[in-house]
Amino acid sequence: MQTPWEYRYAHRMQKMGSSVIRELLKLTQQPDIISFGGGLPAPEVFPLKEFREACNFVLDNFGAQALQYGTTEGYAPLREMIARHTGRYSVSVKPENILITSGSQQALDFIGRVFINRGDYIVVESPTYLGALQAWNAYGAQYISVPMDENGMIVDELEKALRIGPKFIYVLPNFQNPSGSTLSLERRQRIVELADKYGVPIVEDDPYGQLRYEGEHLPSLVYLDSQFRGDDGTYTGNVIYLSTFSKILAPGIRLAWVVAPEQVIKKLVNTKQAADLHTATFNQIVAYEVGKGGFLDEHVKIIRATYKERRDVMLETMEEIWPAGTSWTKPQGGMFLWGMLPKGMDTAEILKLAIDKKVAFVPGFAFHANGGGHNTMRLNFSYSSPEVIREGSTRLGLLLRELVKANGNHN
Amino acid sequence: MQTPWEYRYAHRMQKMGSSVIRELLKLTQQPDIISFGGGLPAPEVFPLKEFREACNFVLDNFGAQALQYGTTEGYAPLREMIARHTGRYSVSVKPENILITSGSQQALDFIGRVFINRGDYIVVESPTYLGALQAWNAYGAQYISVPMDENGMIVDELEKALRIGPKFIYVLPNFQNPSGSTLSLERRQRIVELADKYGVPIVEDDPYGQLRYEGEHLPSLVYLDSQFRGDDGTYTGNVIYLSTFSKILAPGIRLAWVVAPEQVIKKLVNTKQAADLHTATFNQIVAYEVGKGGFLDEHVKIIRATYKERRDVMLETMEEIWPAGTSWTKPQGGMFLWGMLPKGMDTAEILKLAIDKKVAFVPGFAFHANGGGHNTMRLNFSYSSPEVIREGSTRLGLLLRELVKANGNHN
Repeated sequence: MQTPWEYRYAHRMQKMGSSVIRELLKLTQQPDIISFGGGLPAPEVFPLKEFREACNFVLDNFGAQALQYGTTEGYAPLREMIARHTGRYSVSVKPENILITSGSQQALDFIGRVFINRGDYIVVESPTYLGALQAWNAYGAQYISVPMDENGMIVDELEKALRIGPKFIYVLPNFQNPSGSTLSLERRQRIVELADKYGVPIVEDDPYGQLRYEGEHLPSLVYLDSQFRGDDGTYTGNVIYLSTFSKILAPGIRLAWVVAPEQVIKKLVNTKQAADLHTATFNQIVAYEVGKGGFLDEHVKIIRATYKERRDVMLETMEEIWPAGTSWTKPQGGMFLWGMLPKGMDTAEILKLAIDKKVAFVPGFAFHANGGGHNTMRLNFSYSSPEVIREGSTRLGLLLRELVKANGNHN
Repeated sequence: MQTPWEYRYAHRMQKMGSSVIRELLKLTQQPDIISFGGGLPAPEVFPLKEFREACNFVLDNFGAQALQYGTTEGYAPLREMIARHTGRYSVSVKPENILITSGSQQALDFIGRVFINRGDYIVVESPTYLGALQAWNAYGAQYISVPMDENGMIVDELEKALRIGPKFIYVLPNFQNPSGSTLSLERRQRIVELADKYGVPIVEDDPYGQLRYEGEHLPSLVYLDSQFRGDDGTYTGNVIYLSTFSKILAPGIRLAWVVAPEQVIKKLVNTKQAADLHTATFNQIVAYEVGKGGFLDEHVKIIRATYKERRDVMLETMEEIWPAGTSWTKPQGGMFLWGMLPKGMDTAEILKLAIDKKVAFVPGFAFHANGGGHNTMRLNFSYSSPEVIREGSTRLGLLLRELVKANGNHN
């Protein structure tokens, strides 16, 4: 006999079922597999000592406040610190332009809740971040996929998409998850201009911006937008900007932030109040204490050095072993690169063979809002040690040699 | 010039605007006001020493794991501990019946998301918890309000409500927020039977169950439901049960849990994955370490003693000073009591006068889903010291003497 619950799920649940990709990822969780499938930071770079010191300092000095309910907007000194940090790297904002969220996933969810009506179109890169699709599917979003190359979203295609009347443009400009591509400065400027021309705002998701291993830092879209409209210090522009402590401090504390015009922050605050009251007070005060003296600026250099070495090892092994007909991106930062196989090959099928060889990745189709990408894959290079990356990438490369050869004979 | 954002809010935002009650509460935040308006635990009862020890233990022994991404369902040992605890106090469940959430507010939000289609009716007590109304308004819920007395929801009225075809029944059986009422055993049994008879499930919200200051612990609805249907150890019943660490440990770590049939947990997990990936790993492991040796069972005795004294002081002062024609509940536990003034008096108006006397409360209308309650108020007795409660309650009582007298003369 079924329980009444079963007949009572809301119609929107149809969009939320367990996905093919989740089933595939379960396969990769066997203990002896080298997985390039996850998206985990390296635990070796978590600043345990500083975090521990901050926990003790906070409990000694702010004990009761740190364990009490807090404001929905977030801990005021943390919002001020982020406002200062944002001003240093891009656009001048006030704490009123900042909302603290429980990870960027929550910000994506709130953006869906505040802006997406069932059937609305959202412009996304193709491929794009899977978590954003999961968040917005729940609100009945549809997607317009704009193709990318190694310089990010192809802007002429974007203009066509904007004529369809989307709700907003979602873009990950730096070392994109999943492709590893970085949006060029020229395209950033064009996107800001096009967004203004068509009156379509932008959600800029930037978890990895500080994890650049080579080349020059490029200005954020929120900065270019404020320049474009000549803002006088109060940001009232066209961009909602997201970033996070997950990649520069630690993901297990679930701490991220939104930068947006004050009116948008107010709507997001109302949403957050109904959704979880506020982000954990203790975590916010500890992150503030870890970050306030400039420690994270130094710490991120260690993260960069660690991940750069890992990226380089993965790229070297691919160069050595991966067969002709395959190609891949060379990310200037971040945690992922994107492998491309000859047309007609199917990475979802290949994953099963790779798991037999004890190596795993995420098939690229999962990152495509409207299909495609069956010959692509996402590879993470932040989590495993250089030795493990070399071993896993070699295993995968040798498998691909066999398969590409067979595919060539077959065609 | 407006930004494009302004024209892009989803239609559901109409339900999410800043409310009258929020504006009123702003008035109560002046520093010299004695506020019975909030719902804060006493900071004196936070177990700072044990929390600090657990933080250090966790970082020394689980450092990297505690700062890394975790599973959406929650930290496995914490889910096991909650399953054991639940089994001891009520129904036998497995960890698969438990979901860890970022506070119970998040559980209410997820329940709204999974079960409520726009226009669905939800049965609520009148008055009911404001946070549930805020969560479910966002999903377009409508409410059927069932009146209460000092023994909770009036069951004959509930049966009428069930014939309307609501999606579920929402009930806070122990020391209800806001009224302080406790649902009698007989009514608990009747509600479980009626829910089964009409095929309408129950959401049981129990943040205060362990904060009982007198009388016998009453069995939860989830337990009675499992007894009623003769469950053999696997709970597949009719109740979703919510509880939290906010009142027995600390609210600033945002940690709560859901007990439900496994199929419901799976839907809630899918929702949580899209909403915020998971609750902070560090907070979960620390709470587990604080709780695992039975510390919280001892600690809750301190909380009970502290709050009982405060409740008694508030009741004594009310007995002494509040005028004839007023009445109030005598809660057996929890954090709130409910004041009732003669018909025709308006506590929203009286709040303004009370603030002039430097004392505040929440007007009762805010807790009514379908209007009413204008002559009622919620008073919190957990936060302020006994001396401050005596002073504030005296100020309020003296004001009410004047006002009730004037009201009598006027009528």
